[in-house]
Amino acid sequence: MADSKPASGYKTAGGKAAAFEIASYLKERAALVEAALARSVAAPDGPAGRLFEAMRYSLLAGGKRLRPVLAIAACEAVGGAAEAAMGFACAIEMIHTYSLIHDDLPCMDDDDLRRGRPTNHKVYGEAMATLAGDGLLTDAFTVLARSAPGVPAAVVIETVAELAEAAGSAGMVGGQVIDLLGEGRALSLEELEYLHSKKTGALFVAAVCCGARLGGASQAQIRALREYAQALGLAFQVVDDLIDVEESTENVGKRTHKDEARGKATYPSLIGVARSREMARELAGKARHALAGFDHRAEPLRALASFAVERKL
Amino acid sequence: MADSKPASGYKTAGGKAAAFEIASYLKERAALVEAALARSVAAPDGPAGRLFEAMRYSLLAGGKRLRPVLAIAACEAVGGAAEAAMGFACAIEMIHTYSLIHDDLPCMDDDDLRRGRPTNHKVYGEAMATLAGDGLLTDAFTVLARSAPGVPAAVVIETVAELAEAAGSAGMVGGQVIDLLGEGRALSLEELEYLHSKKTGALFVAAVCCGARLGGASQAQIRALREYAQALGLAFQVVDDLIDVEESTENVGKRTHKDEARGKATYPSLIGVARSREMARELAGKARHALAGFDHRAEPLRALASFAVERKL
Repeated sequence: MADSKPASGYKTAGGKAAAFEIASYLKERAALVEAALARSVAAPDGPAGRLFEAMRYSLLAGGKRLRPVLAIAACEAVGGAAEAAMGFACAIEMIHTYSLIHDDLPCMDDDDLRRGRPTNHKVYGEAMATLAGDGLLTDAFTVLARSAPGVPAAVVIETVAELAEAAGSAGMVGGQVIDLLGEGRALSLEELEYLHSKKTGALFVAAVCCGARLGGASQAQIRALREYAQALGLAFQVVDDLIDVEESTENVGKRTHKDEARGKATYPSLIGVARSREMARELAGKARHALAGFDHRAEPLRALASFAVERKL
Repeated sequence: MADSKPASGYKTAGGKAAAFEIASYLKERAALVEAALARSVAAPDGPAGRLFEAMRYSLLAGGKRLRPVLAIAACEAVGGAAEAAMGFACAIEMIHTYSLIHDDLPCMDDDDLRRGRPTNHKVYGEAMATLAGDGLLTDAFTVLARSAPGVPAAVVIETVAELAEAAGSAGMVGGQVIDLLGEGRALSLEELEYLHSKKTGALFVAAVCCGARLGGASQAQIRALREYAQALGLAFQVVDDLIDVEESTENVGKRTHKDEARGKATYPSLIGVARSREMARELAGKARHALAGFDHRAEPLRALASFAVERKL
């Protein structure tokens, strides 16, 4: 019965009830991810116990679980079972977490606070934090390669390649370098967009496209979802920049106003706060529009596009 | 004709001629790896050009190319084509190189010299060196997933999992942590062996076993090759410890006597120089013995076992 609902099923069912249904969906999927993540890193005992403790400290520190939930929602949007994307979902969150640990290191952004707690190296020291990041990044590929029940090996290999490409020198790590080299220099809007397409966008796209692949998506569906994810990733970045300008450190749980302090280019600094807000809304609209050909099973993805601009944190 | 040679073919052909043939084989395979490695990291242009420069600086700095040559030799020992293992061979060398870059960082071993040249962070700074390591580690999985022509996807997935496991928290990174926590503390011989089985042994085993898998090895062949690789890896470590004690920095191209200076446990410090030499020879014999069931195509692997203990550097 649920499967035969029209594409607008959630909407015609009444705005508030639909919103509640989707909020439950997202919460439930995040809880599944949370449990799977806890299983994906060994318990902190044995001679290398402190390593697992450091990895778990950052991996299980909460966070929105946005990338894994996107992967699962994309998998289900094309009719796949959440379980098929769960290994990948854990892998991408492990990679996201490693990138935060390394970004926070003294030689990088030198941050003391993350998700309201001392950063990894503040608790475990720089050497252990470096290794905890290395461990999470490497183990992500074990988890991905070992946990995609029922998915053809050729599809799993494609997700390994796509995730590594998105996270590596042509993607996130490359974006990090552009950011590093661009600090204190005025970037154009095009340069800023390019930077973010690498630094955060690539992992959003991989989350959505690989999730869909693992759910059995067609090439046409993957093309549409790529557009969705690109717009969504940029919307999140613009809103992150707005939050950095507008909120206090206390509310956000990490140091804010730091972009300004470092002379980093941001959307508000380049095009102003009002235009940045408008841009985020336009991008969310574009993301939803890319899902026009999908039925009600894409409602969670649509809701995530709205969440991207409405969230406060 | 070559294929019908008896297992002892190289030996009966006369010791010197056989040694020459194997030396040519190893040199030729290392040259193939060298060329493939240069192709596996993008040219240093574009906005992230400095990243690729840093990655290439360490990746293309020479080195013995031991792990990739082992992978190719294992692939050919079971009748596979070198080409099938080339992507994997590059991937494992990229991972070995990332581990050296991160190990040399000030927060880790704080080394200034590697392969006779300034370490990565001495040239590119700590932030870029951290990212160059992250990039090499991540890109290794792209290379592996995208370059195994003609190999069934299920076999490639198995090598992804095995390599990630060997390099991650249960393998090399875990060994690194045990090493870090053990500094200045007296280790027993068993603890030292456990440390090395993780820190360097795991990657040796992955090199040999994955290379063989990609060449179409049977389960029995992989079991025998695992024994070979475990003994070989430990032999190399014992000899490395001996070199650290006996050679000068000038000859080795990296700082020597550093284990002693840091109070790190080594084989010579635990069991003496003479017994360490004997142990290395025994291990090389054990490695060769594990290859008893293989024909002449395993001669390069046998030769590598001898090289492990005879090398000076």
